[in-house]
Amino acid sequence: MDPEAFLDVANQVIKLKMFPFFDIAHSLLAALAVREDLGANAQAFSRKHPLACWLSTMLVIFAGGMVANGLLGEPILAPLKNTGQLLVGTAVWYIVFYTPFDIGYKVAKFLPVKIVASAMKEIYRAKKVYDGVGHAAKLYPNAWIIMIIIGTLKGNGAGFTKLIERLIRGAWTPTAMEFMQPSFYTKASLLASIIFVLDKKTDWISAPHALVYFGIVIFLVYFKLSSILLGIHDPFLPLENLCCAIFFGGIWDSLAKILGRGQAKDGDSKDVKKTN
Amino acid sequence: MDPEAFLDVANQVIKLKMFPFFDIAHSLLAALAVREDLGANAQAFSRKHPLACWLSTMLVIFAGGMVANGLLGEPILAPLKNTGQLLVGTAVWYIVFYTPFDIGYKVAKFLPVKIVASAMKEIYRAKKVYDGVGHAAKLYPNAWIIMIIIGTLKGNGAGFTKLIERLIRGAWTPTAMEFMQPSFYTKASLLASIIFVLDKKTDWISAPHALVYFGIVIFLVYFKLSSILLGIHDPFLPLENLCCAIFFGGIWDSLAKILGRGQAKDGDSKDVKKTN
Amino acid sequence: MDPEAFLDVANQVIKLKMFPFFDIAHSLLAALAVREDLGANAQAFSRKHPLACWLSTMLVIFAGGMVANGLLGEPILAPLKNTGQLLVGTAVWYIVFYTPFDIGYKVAKFLPVKIVASAMKEIYRAKKVYDGVGHAAKLYPNAWIIMIIIGTLKGNGAGFTKLIERLIRGAWTPTAMEFMQPSFYTKASLLASIIFVLDKKTDWISAPHALVYFGIVIFLVYFKLSSILLGIHDPFLPLENLCCAIFFGGIWDSLAKILGRGQAKDGDSKDVKKTN
Repeated sequence: MDPEAFLDVANQVIKLKMFPFFDIAHSLLAALAVREDLGANAQAFSRKHPLACWLSTMLVIFAGGMVANGLLGEPILAPLKNTGQLLVGTAVWYIVFYTPFDIGYKVAKFLPVKIVASAMKEIYRAKKVYDGVGHAAKLYPNAWIIMIIIGTLKGNGAGFTKLIERLIRGAWTPTAMEFMQPSFYTKASLLASIIFVLDKKTDWISAPHALVYFGIVIFLVYFKLSSILLGIHDPFLPLENLCCAIFFGGIWDSLAKILGRGQAKDGDSKDVKKTN
Repeated sequence: MDPEAFLDVANQVIKLKMFPFFDIAHSLLAALAVREDLGANAQAFSRKHPLACWLSTMLVIFAGGMVANGLLGEPILAPLKNTGQLLVGTAVWYIVFYTPFDIGYKVAKFLPVKIVASAMKEIYRAKKVYDGVGHAAKLYPNAWIIMIIIGTLKGNGAGFTKLIERLIRGAWTPTAMEFMQPSFYTKASLLASIIFVLDKKTDWISAPHALVYFGIVIFLVYFKLSSILLGIHDPFLPLENLCCAIFFGGIWDSLAKILGRGQAKDGDSKDVKKTN
Repeated sequence: MDPEAFLDVANQVIKLKMFPFFDIAHSLLAALAVREDLGANAQAFSRKHPLACWLSTMLVIFAGGMVANGLLGEPILAPLKNTGQLLVGTAVWYIVFYTPFDIGYKVAKFLPVKIVASAMKEIYRAKKVYDGVGHAAKLYPNAWIIMIIIGTLKGNGAGFTKLIERLIRGAWTPTAMEFMQPSFYTKASLLASIIFVLDKKTDWISAPHALVYFGIVIFLVYFKLSSILLGIHDPFLPLENLCCAIFFGGIWDSLAKILGRGQAKDGDSKDVKKTN
């Protein structure tokens, strides 16, 4: 591909308008996630508790903005002032849960629809991470960690509000904490945030700005599609295991064990360094 | 009744001063609610944990303002700066929990006292919903949903902080989520918020502003007294069932069942559309 | 000791620079607290979940500032913008959890190290309470209760975030609520806050300002060392029991019992008025 043309595409991707099509895709996947989280009970629940159902879907849709606002001292409800997004979200929620004969849900679950929506959602995610990093950078120009946290939260807000979202529906699962077993989306958003921060604040990345953004979009879409089509769920795992072995005690634990001074109570320390 | 005189009364109701008598009534019912929530254990608990007892009572009293502030990016503690209300609340809490021979509690439980306090609290509730809608409208003039949410939260804040209030007292009841089984107060505050928003933002309601307000006060007081005296707990129920049947799948589910394509796993779908 | 020299020392204590040594001591005790809270499982956990481990340690280190900011409508993440503190905290966390052969942890647990760190932390605590009260006083010059709450939270923030900190690590212990059984640190921070507020807002305390501050530092350090070396855990207990007996029903309950009208269901009311 001609580099010039490639840069052109990148410049167009960075300027893509998100509303309404990307919002529809995002809302659709959010509503599906809520419905799947409810399990076999979903339909009965949606009939009995429409309010809780609607609220938890809205929380999933607006999670990133709400959590980021909450942590930055801005109004948590502010994302709801975007009436267009709210209406799109409500319409999609209604279609997924209440259409006659469940047609809406069945169409949404249809593989090609799901693939297109997922790809669009990843493009949206890149934009959210980018906006989150930019917003935090405006407030705290020197606090890299805040930029990275906000970028990650904007990228995968729903992962971090899962506990509250379930609580709205009367279920409490304290062990399903995102920090304990970060999902691929959290890790990818974290990586994207770090790259955007480096691109913004240092000279280490010499590529044009639009290319960096486009690269992250491609990375996110590529692994999302791999995950749906090929079942590859976490390409970060080998890297993490290596990192854990070097920095977080793996090698030293093994060494201590060989020297006969290993902590017996920790069991086989090789087994435990699996996930982040 | 002469319409002129009626409007006069309405205009006086809208200007009623809340402090200190309405605050006393509100605090009294809040302290009684905490004491009843503690059950048979209440007296022993209040002797053992005065701090937790005081804090959870204060949370109930100031719930609406705190939650609304939290969601609008304003200081959560700000409602406490009102020293008068705080002192009234503390005095009432002390009287309900610690008077010799439990005189305070017994007087507060005396039916006529409770009826007067309840009626006053409903007048207060109408004012809080009204103020909440007005405050949100000033911040987000076009975001109806935010006005409605804030109005509802101001009207029945204690319902939404119940989980936190119990947590302060070391009890955790995740299934007691207000959204799952909204109480009458939540539904009434929601309805009042919607009416206030319509009155403020559209021309659909042609009645004078004071009359709308007065109508809501009468509605709230009337159903509160019905609930205490006659045991009518939720006048919204028939409306909700109708609404669920039409919009949230009831009819279609029945139809699907008749056509022999009903979701067998949902059981008798008619049974489940009971509450919001 | 010469009063003049004493006042000189007091003036120097009030101007002590906290960064980096006091921050190191504070972070060290925070990381140790997290590690001890994890129990026998600590090492395996730190290998499996470095992210959750790091986050919960950071939450303990920055708890006071974050909670106070959250309640005052300021950005919760703002304390993280202090890059120096963040790096010190991360380095200390790494040393406590991941040094080869657990050298870091063993050194930190060594009694003299712990005593010095604890004494430094108490000096830091006094400063935090003082800053918290001052900050709240600037925002709400007349709201004593807000000053006291913020001072207490700044002084023992980690006590109040324990539930969230454990939740980050996937553990949920709703009964471990600080309000139910306030620790000595909470009570001491509360007392210090009250004294600072009185010193700031009234003329009741005639001693020079620096002396009041110095007195509180000595009080905190003295009882911390007593606690480590002599095992005295709560010097407030006798005072509390007295206070509970007089104000919170103790005497009246006993009287009611003697008169044969005691609440039988509360059992022996003398037994229950033990802790705040």
